[in-house]
Amino acid sequence: MAALLFTSLLALAVHSAAQLAGRGFPDCQNGPLKNNTVCNTSADPLTRARALINALTLQEKLNNTGSDSPGVPRLGLPAYTWWQEALHGVASSPGVNFSDSGSFRYATSFPQPILMGAAFDDDLIRDVATVISTEARAFNNDDRAGLDFWTPNINPFKDSRWGRGQETPGEDPYHLSSYVYSLIEGLQGSPDDKYKRVVATCKHFVAYDMESWNGNFRYQWDAHVNPQDLVEYYMPPFQSCARDSNVGAFMCSYNSLNGVPTCADPYLLQTVLREHWNWTSEQQWVTSDCDAVQNVFLPHGYGKTREEAAALSLKAGTDVNCGTYYQEHLPAALEQGLINSTDLDTALIRQYSSLVRLGYFDGMAVPYRNLTWADVSTPYAQQLAKKAAVEGITLLKNDGLLPLKIDNGTKLALIGDWANATDQMLGNYDGIPPYYHSPLYAAQQTGATVNFAPYPGGQGDPTTDNWLHIWNAANQSDVIVYAGGLDNSVEAEGMDRVSIAWTGAQLDVIGQLAMYGKPVIVLQMGGGQLDSSPIANNPNISALLWGGYPGQDGGSALFDIIQGKSAPAGRLPTTQYPADYIAKVPMTDMTLRPNATSGSPGRTYIWYQGKPIYEFGYGLHYTNFTASLGSSNSSSSPYSTSSLIGNCTEAYKDRCAFKTFNVAVKNTGSVQSDYVTLGFLAGQHGPAPYPNKRLVSYQRLHNITAGSTQTAALNLTLGSLARVDGMGNTVLYPGDYALLIDTQPLAMVNFTLTGDPVVLDHWPQPPTPRFQTTDYFVGGYGSTYGDQLLIDGTI
Amino acid sequence: MAALLFTSLLALAVHSAAQLAGRGFPDCQNGPLKNNTVCNTSADPLTRARALINALTLQEKLNNTGSDSPGVPRLGLPAYTWWQEALHGVASSPGVNFSDSGSFRYATSFPQPILMGAAFDDDLIRDVATVISTEARAFNNDDRAGLDFWTPNINPFKDSRWGRGQETPGEDPYHLSSYVYSLIEGLQGSPDDKYKRVVATCKHFVAYDMESWNGNFRYQWDAHVNPQDLVEYYMPPFQSCARDSNVGAFMCSYNSLNGVPTCADPYLLQTVLREHWNWTSEQQWVTSDCDAVQNVFLPHGYGKTREEAAALSLKAGTDVNCGTYYQEHLPAALEQGLINSTDLDTALIRQYSSLVRLGYFDGMAVPYRNLTWADVSTPYAQQLAKKAAVEGITLLKNDGLLPLKIDNGTKLALIGDWANATDQMLGNYDGIPPYYHSPLYAAQQTGATVNFAPYPGGQGDPTTDNWLHIWNAANQSDVIVYAGGLDNSVEAEGMDRVSIAWTGAQLDVIGQLAMYGKPVIVLQMGGGQLDSSPIANNPNISALLWGGYPGQDGGSALFDIIQGKSAPAGRLPTTQYPADYIAKVPMTDMTLRPNATSGSPGRTYIWYQGKPIYEFGYGLHYTNFTASLGSSNSSSSPYSTSSLIGNCTEAYKDRCAFKTFNVAVKNTGSVQSDYVTLGFLAGQHGPAPYPNKRLVSYQRLHNITAGSTQTAALNLTLGSLARVDGMGNTVLYPGDYALLIDTQPLAMVNFTLTGDPVVLDHWPQPPTPRFQTTDYFVGGYGSTYGDQLLIDGTI
Repeated sequence: MAALLFTSLLALAVHSAAQLAGRGFPDCQNGPLKNNTVCNTSADPLTRARALINALTLQEKLNNTGSDSPGVPRLGLPAYTWWQEALHGVASSPGVNFSDSGSFRYATSFPQPILMGAAFDDDLIRDVATVISTEARAFNNDDRAGLDFWTPNINPFKDSRWGRGQETPGEDPYHLSSYVYSLIEGLQGSPDDKYKRVVATCKHFVAYDMESWNGNFRYQWDAHVNPQDLVEYYMPPFQSCARDSNVGAFMCSYNSLNGVPTCADPYLLQTVLREHWNWTSEQQWVTSDCDAVQNVFLPHGYGKTREEAAALSLKAGTDVNCGTYYQEHLPAALEQGLINSTDLDTALIRQYSSLVRLGYFDGMAVPYRNLTWADVSTPYAQQLAKKAAVEGITLLKNDGLLPLKIDNGTKLALIGDWANATDQMLGNYDGIPPYYHSPLYAAQQTGATVNFAPYPGGQGDPTTDNWLHIWNAANQSDVIVYAGGLDNSVEAEGMDRVSIAWTGAQLDVIGQLAMYGKPVIVLQMGGGQLDSSPIANNPNISALLWGGYPGQDGGSALFDIIQGKSAPAGRLPTTQYPADYIAKVPMTDMTLRPNATSGSPGRTYIWYQGKPIYEFGYGLHYTNFTASLGSSNSSSSPYSTSSLIGNCTEAYKDRCAFKTFNVAVKNTGSVQSDYVTLGFLAGQHGPAPYPNKRLVSYQRLHNITAGSTQTAALNLTLGSLARVDGMGNTVLYPGDYALLIDTQPLAMVNFTLTGDPVVLDHWPQPPTPRFQTTDYFVGGYGSTYGDQLLIDGTI
Repeated sequence: MAALLFTSLLALAVHSAAQLAGRGFPDCQNGPLKNNTVCNTSADPLTRARALINALTLQEKLNNTGSDSPGVPRLGLPAYTWWQEALHGVASSPGVNFSDSGSFRYATSFPQPILMGAAFDDDLIRDVATVISTEARAFNNDDRAGLDFWTPNINPFKDSRWGRGQETPGEDPYHLSSYVYSLIEGLQGSPDDKYKRVVATCKHFVAYDMESWNGNFRYQWDAHVNPQDLVEYYMPPFQSCARDSNVGAFMCSYNSLNGVPTCADPYLLQTVLREHWNWTSEQQWVTSDCDAVQNVFLPHGYGKTREEAAALSLKAGTDVNCGTYYQEHLPAALEQGLINSTDLDTALIRQYSSLVRLGYFDGMAVPYRNLTWADVSTPYAQQLAKKAAVEGITLLKNDGLLPLKIDNGTKLALIGDWANATDQMLGNYDGIPPYYHSPLYAAQQTGATVNFAPYPGGQGDPTTDNWLHIWNAANQSDVIVYAGGLDNSVEAEGMDRVSIAWTGAQLDVIGQLAMYGKPVIVLQMGGGQLDSSPIANNPNISALLWGGYPGQDGGSALFDIIQGKSAPAGRLPTTQYPADYIAKVPMTDMTLRPNATSGSPGRTYIWYQGKPIYEFGYGLHYTNFTASLGSSNSSSSPYSTSSLIGNCTEAYKDRCAFKTFNVAVKNTGSVQSDYVTLGFLAGQHGPAPYPNKRLVSYQRLHNITAGSTQTAALNLTLGSLARVDGMGNTVLYPGDYALLIDTQPLAMVNFTLTGDPVVLDHWPQPPTPRFQTTDYFVGGYGSTYGDQLLIDGTI
């Protein structure tokens, strides 16, 4: 067997990213493929792709199963890298090649999704994504990027510790579903367009939200999730991607779900994704997370041999293997009869018909082929990057100090390791921005005298070595701004946080700064929330702003808010828990509901039973708002479930309209401001326990001038009302409902549903239950080690 | 209060490491101090230091309380940095300044202590430490280092996860005590010398052996240790340092012990250290770990105010504050009456009398002042660095492949991310070595054709991207060497490991290499142990060597062993546990004994009830040995405890001799080899439960030629026999004893003690019990969060 294995390997040419440079497009005019149907623009994508794949030898097919496809030189099919990143702008990644100088040396770097999520502005997201896909096409035209982007990360951010929560728009599944719909429209364009702008990839499917916790690693961790939590919380963003947005690609995750690695799970990739969600276009494909197929063998230990692990993954529906495991082990799998040529064809046809749909074979007929370096980092894009940051920045505390007049008579202390942030502002999956406008840069633009001390180095050792500089800066100033919190040294891919408290060194410095008797403003930066109660409770600290990872113009955005050039209207997209919260819930506990036995107080604002420091949706303004639902919103309660469903003609019943509530929002203060209209649903309906409330609609209103009123239209569907039963079915239940406007409700309306429960969506059950219901949470801190790497067999 | 605080601060000049360069020595010939008694070489150190401190103003005293002392320009007292490092060679640190070129651009870099511990050769350690102190003096003479070195780290390495375990010689308290005695002799010279070579610093006092585990951080963690475990396990190396070696300095640790931060604990620093251990020379001082005084306030929250935390630390006996907290907050403490001038004098006199003892004020009268760059990295030192590595490298598996003939006809694959190691070989607290002789370098020196593939990048993501290079290298070779394991990316200061298994990617690659049917040798590198059972159990892997962090010549040492130029005789200084061990014992569990309630199977070979993969003391040879105790060792059993104690005239009863056992060790094989004679004591005596066994003596025999015999003399004292009771008293108990030679005993002798128990050492009790006995272990994974940073008060 060994001989067979390695003989096959020898047939595979070694290739590297460097060799793939200069990939270009296939030449359908004069190249060897010119007479192949793949070059026939009047044929449909499936037919074209089939023709191409039919022209490949078996070895050529095997060669092109990884994320770096060598192509087929014989046919003039260029090498192609499937792996590009663009989480918040075209990003450094295997397929993206920034220039060292001149054109294409940078791209617009927007805020991290966690801050863009705080804007609660789907139009903004569509605009941002459109800029990203435009710049991506410009890079592609210069042979500096492919057309497939492995973004967005749309796993809900349910645990503050998660190092990659920053990549997501927040913790709420409705919010994520709505956000990602707009995002994909911006990235891919309209589904009706002949050519996709680029292909987006919804990841990580599914229940992936832990990097490394207490001996559990993402590469080997088995998430135990019951059907109710799965459908109600973990699945909605992916349903939005697949069923509603028709996204071009999915990525299966490192973890396994209820015993089966997701990349080798036909229930997930075929039954749920392709069949239940009707994600069956020939142009849609699944990639593994990088080397997740290798992980199917080790550490998951799911296949008996390496070739079996690879075969199980391919047959389950993982079309592309990020890495080389397919290339290395599918040859032996083929020789052993674990896969056949048709399995390879299925995967390759999906990939290449997707490229057809991108116009890869169509030359200059593709309108996006005209985009150039002039379309990158345009004034509009730069302004949009700043706007996105401004919209997301969230005001958590203000004793009236803000907005603050700053001019060249102001002496400003700017302290903390975020004060002169560069890369820090971008967060992870970043590219190269045109500039870094740090808080220090922005402070200096105000004309103020800025006394700057970049200490303490917040995340590492508490070192007092340079603290004298801090006191000098504070002594020389009239106003003190402290910029700290978190950064990617403590929350990152592969690294979850082990504390959600501010570091002792930062609190010590902030506490001493508060003793000066001068106005103090704290900027809480980073993606995951920190327990800011010591700052909230200190009467000598005037203001607290959360700034996330604000991108290339983040400092300017922060100082626009501080000075009142823009008014804050961001809302927290995640719950800010007290620091001891994480002692009560292991990261490995995937359940959402509070649990007396395990001691979990529940997860997310939907279920958490404790008192948050700042709740999901919290955010102050520089003005005051009232909201009213008005008489036109008076409900026709009670509604009968049978008539609601009887009037519903959609294929997917949850999409049917229930009612649009018009919310009149009045700015009763003196400062023009945006306002995010949040609609939460509460009440006793469906299976107990009942959630605290859940977001069902939102709309950001823009530039409401002082004294004026704007109206938000909150569209509720039958899906908004529905809840999920123990089998994962989505059901419209009779019972009492209340729609609440905002976190501390400014308005509300009650209504009632009567009649029998009606199933809106029958959830497909896995072929065999892999766990008993009582096993869904492998509880406690000790036993969670059961999933760590324990390999005692032969390797 | 705030105004007072910051007024005082303004009086303190800002200084930095850069400004401290060019410190030099005080000029006792012509400088302002020439008539001060400190310059009178015939006065005793205490008198001289007192005279100096008497000449200082109060502000000058306050200025000189930190690790960077600005000195007193008015008096010609130079600035001085107390913080130098030299864990395994003169190391990069605030007080050490390597040159960019020319002289003093490097220093000898020995293996990490964990590998030198594996040599079980105290003479070697003394030789190594003598080279280090020689090179340190040469650096000092060129104004490139001070004379105080914050080494050794002598906390026992009881948990494989500990990121800094690599800095220690291992897990056994007797071994550490014996090792550190020789080390300090080499660093400081004989206690009778007029001038110390340098001052060593035993750290971290005490019960510090965790960086960051599950929300517990070293800066805030409260170690709960009962008196029995404390005296029996955590204290012995420190007793050796203080009482037996008269080390010049101690460092208190970040953690608290039973509720009190060690740097603010008069029980530890005065009652135990200075009084019980008679560590009362005026030349001995305690430094805080860096910023540990800041941590007394936050996150420990031990003082009500910052100035109280600083005052409590100074009065407890922390003489030097690494950092600036003393400089910043003692002024206010003084004004508030929390300390007085005498408290400052006590600390400063200790520091400066230590400098007197180093000859700091005595000019060229100090013999070490003649050492120069010519005394750094001498041929002897280079040879010793290699010898230290060779002596420590431990052979764990060998099917007869080793020693292996390698010549220019050999085709050797060298694979793995340690293959071309540079910095990796040094571990942490490293300096700049004269060269890095990596495994690749050493392999190339053999004349063999070396096919090199530095993959997988073992510690990070499992990426298969470059695996084809691995198979190419293996295909082209006759013998495969895989060099991997751990490095400082996963075990480091501030970072404990969360797994003790090999990564899945490394195991996958090793497993595939084993399928080639070619000889495979695995080098397990790094400090903490890994569960190597998949390698041990794979019949297609011939040999496994543990190489730790082998220093500047580590690759050569490894290949000397592989080729048989040297024979392996190292022994594991820590237990190699199965991977699931860490699921059974929280890092925060400081108890050693097995515990049915908590589920702990016990810690270290002394108490562990499970089957280790490789046990403490394990190590194979290229030859065979027999050992015999001979008739001269026949015991005069039974011994009466009263007569044993009656014949004892030492002030410290545990030091009295019991008996020297002479062990005749015969090399019955055909290869010359060293042999480490390990003497373990077992038997039923003292309080139950009884340990499995415990190391009481060891001696490394050198170069035993084939067929010949050498004799090891194992000296047992009354302390060797004694055990510790529940109050921490050291007691000689009646009962049965067995002395076992080696891990799988080659010889043994039994004896009996009769009579009443006799207390050899009455352990001083803390003033008030801080915990009830049953509280010593705050058990379980959930409740251990109790010590994390939870700050809800005003900051």
